[in-house]
Amino acid sequence: MTAEPDRFASLREALSDAALTTDPDIMQSYRQDWARDPDAVLPAAVVRARNTEDVQAVMRWATANRVSVVPRGAGSGLSGGATAVADCIVLSTELMRNFEIDPVTRVAVVEPGLLNVEVKNAAAEHGLWYPPDPSSFEMCSIGGNVATNAGGLCCVKYGVTADYVLALRVVLSDGTAVRLGGPRLKEVAGLSLTKLFVGSEGTLGVITEATLRLIPQQPPSCTLVAPFPSVQSAADAVLAITRTLRPSMLEFMDRVSIGAVEDAMRMGLDREAEAMLIVRSDAPGDVAALEIARISDACTENGADEVFTTHDPEEGEAFAAARRAAIPAVERLGSLLLEDVGVPVPKLPALVTGIEEIAARHDVMVAVIAHAGDGNTHPLIVFDPEDTDMTARAHLVFGEIMDLAIGLGGTITGEHGVGRLKKAWLPDQVGTDVMALTERIKTALDPLGILNPGAVL
Amino acid sequence: MTAEPDRFASLREALSDAALTTDPDIMQSYRQDWARDPDAVLPAAVVRARNTEDVQAVMRWATANRVSVVPRGAGSGLSGGATAVADCIVLSTELMRNFEIDPVTRVAVVEPGLLNVEVKNAAAEHGLWYPPDPSSFEMCSIGGNVATNAGGLCCVKYGVTADYVLALRVVLSDGTAVRLGGPRLKEVAGLSLTKLFVGSEGTLGVITEATLRLIPQQPPSCTLVAPFPSVQSAADAVLAITRTLRPSMLEFMDRVSIGAVEDAMRMGLDREAEAMLIVRSDAPGDVAALEIARISDACTENGADEVFTTHDPEEGEAFAAARRAAIPAVERLGSLLLEDVGVPVPKLPALVTGIEEIAARHDVMVAVIAHAGDGNTHPLIVFDPEDTDMTARAHLVFGEIMDLAIGLGGTITGEHGVGRLKKAWLPDQVGTDVMALTERIKTALDPLGILNPGAVL
Repeated sequence: MTAEPDRFASLREALSDAALTTDPDIMQSYRQDWARDPDAVLPAAVVRARNTEDVQAVMRWATANRVSVVPRGAGSGLSGGATAVADCIVLSTELMRNFEIDPVTRVAVVEPGLLNVEVKNAAAEHGLWYPPDPSSFEMCSIGGNVATNAGGLCCVKYGVTADYVLALRVVLSDGTAVRLGGPRLKEVAGLSLTKLFVGSEGTLGVITEATLRLIPQQPPSCTLVAPFPSVQSAADAVLAITRTLRPSMLEFMDRVSIGAVEDAMRMGLDREAEAMLIVRSDAPGDVAALEIARISDACTENGADEVFTTHDPEEGEAFAAARRAAIPAVERLGSLLLEDVGVPVPKLPALVTGIEEIAARHDVMVAVIAHAGDGNTHPLIVFDPEDTDMTARAHLVFGEIMDLAIGLGGTITGEHGVGRLKKAWLPDQVGTDVMALTERIKTALDPLGILNPGAVL
Repeated sequence: MTAEPDRFASLREALSDAALTTDPDIMQSYRQDWARDPDAVLPAAVVRARNTEDVQAVMRWATANRVSVVPRGAGSGLSGGATAVADCIVLSTELMRNFEIDPVTRVAVVEPGLLNVEVKNAAAEHGLWYPPDPSSFEMCSIGGNVATNAGGLCCVKYGVTADYVLALRVVLSDGTAVRLGGPRLKEVAGLSLTKLFVGSEGTLGVITEATLRLIPQQPPSCTLVAPFPSVQSAADAVLAITRTLRPSMLEFMDRVSIGAVEDAMRMGLDREAEAMLIVRSDAPGDVAALEIARISDACTENGADEVFTTHDPEEGEAFAAARRAAIPAVERLGSLLLEDVGVPVPKLPALVTGIEEIAARHDVMVAVIAHAGDGNTHPLIVFDPEDTDMTARAHLVFGEIMDLAIGLGGTITGEHGVGRLKKAWLPDQVGTDVMALTERIKTALDPLGILNPGAVL
């Protein structure tokens, strides 16, 4: 009996202790992210990096051996950006969790393994706030947030992850570690490389540190909930609100998602409503109440059946809970394909009614929730994976919804990323010239094509 | 007598009527921007493009003939980004002035020749606001703003140009025109190419259209002015203010600039003060007055000699006029080298006192004004161009101030760009690895190196 030579021996030596594993049982949980990409395979190895040097060692070894590397944060991605590919190393940054809050400069310097909620909590200890709030904020990592330019509910007023990234440390495909940007609020020295790496989904480099801008904590919010008799009337209210005000949350639920939440939680929601808006103002002082009153008027004038408002933060949180409960509530009805299409805000009614038409035509249930103020929707396509015909129809719906969004001047992904599940539609959205431009940048930065191959491009 | 063959004949034919000129008298005014780069030469031709097709024709011809192209907006740049180089075509976008405001989607679709103030005014007609406000907003073009990622006074609360660019039409070096992004508030489909072109100073492509996010107009501001006995006490007040509040303007003037403004305008400013802050709150309702009261307390607690506040917008504008008058007031004292260095906000006192030391050592007058809330300063180096020794010392000061900023963890340029005047310092700030990365992207997008050669890189 001869021992099989360890192809990773030199890499193991260059890494922190026990950072690399080839144990199939462990590797099994690094095979997929939440997109549950059926094409995922077991990787050749998993490296749980402890520091930037580990990441550099992996990239140097991968370059020398022409082995693919799939970077991975918390694995909560919804587009298959962290799907393991054949003979790859999955490079997890989950153990890189150092951080420092500088309350005077108002920045957080964080390693990628920290969860979004942990950044928020650390900032809050200094009276500061890190706004971006993906719904998965309690389990998604800040590294993944940066790699996908994650959004959330407060983006309608406070912007997305890219708006808060001042600086990055990035390991390039050949193992070079660069520092981009700095703790400076204005910076135009050279190309905007920091912004290029935000949202690059692990295809250009591996983020090992981020410097995030923090802002003073905002006052507590006032909250409004209003059911509407039609999608159009709710959308009209959205446009009327955003025309003059800047709400801190402006969320939409359709009839299917309202029903699913009511089934699951018995909150007393109006099952007869075709749509519901949940809106918040965090304006300071008495202004939040004034703004909510104006938002209430906008809802009533555009046909809201009723309007509930509260200035009590706990009651407001209960209202918002209906929206947050939507995905798990709909998930009780079957497996989900989670969409992320966005359109210019005035096109919301056309998008939602178009989705209804697609769902009816293929006899598949689709619930629609949306960050309405951003025009960013999450159609939830419900199917039974045991039913192969329905599963095929669900995937048809998944594609047709993207085609519909593109036709409305929209995007196939507002905040989840292209990953592997959506890349077939990317050329349809951006066109061949932009794809060629993207390839030129990819080739310039990753000439061997070893960084997250098959994602995005 | 034989006519000299027209080397531009085929280009003239491809362009709108009379777009190309080789008239030396006309070309003289396209030789330099406001940086007055002494190395500027007469270009071989000037093209005043009327549309995207003209820009494409220039880039196709330039690629075929390997001729350099220097893109130019209004020519108000301060770093020599539009300095004409030998045998180049200066490509001006000043005549491309179409625009459309979509008040429902809340975007402005603008051609690059529109002035910043014209975008603001067009938005205001719909009750909307385009925030970025470089001091030159009445004469700088939006194309130049995008190409340099321009900042301004309101950035401390509202961010810079990049934060408002949703989409671009860009002509690449080979004449291909691409559309990047769209009128969508969230977008993660593919690499962040829109953001890469913002601030690229004409080195990667020529911007022929921009889609800008607009926000509802903000309420009128309350304004505060406070003189301080030391730079440190003013800087301490800045940190105390930004720790909990988000002022809409937070500007700093040093003793030299206060004196110059008082000489020019007789406003009754305190010549004995070592520093002065001008601060604004545009919080809604009664909150602005409450915020200004808290800002006033922060100033007093940190040693302000006096504090003046006003809730009258006209009186507030008069206060702000002192700050806006600083550059012309200092310019009465001599020619200026205008700096743009930035540091993390807590390093402001070290930067300002370091600048004083450099100025004293070289016996050159330097006035410092700053967007203090951003840590972005504009040291104004005063010299007599007839005095060759003083001119040499002024240029030494120019470089040493950048060295100082880099040493303090800062940047050589916060909002003006690198252009040609600052490129010698860029490697010192970002390092050789980042320069190499920048070169890789430049080469991928402009393999012949014909786009604004000598700028940035």
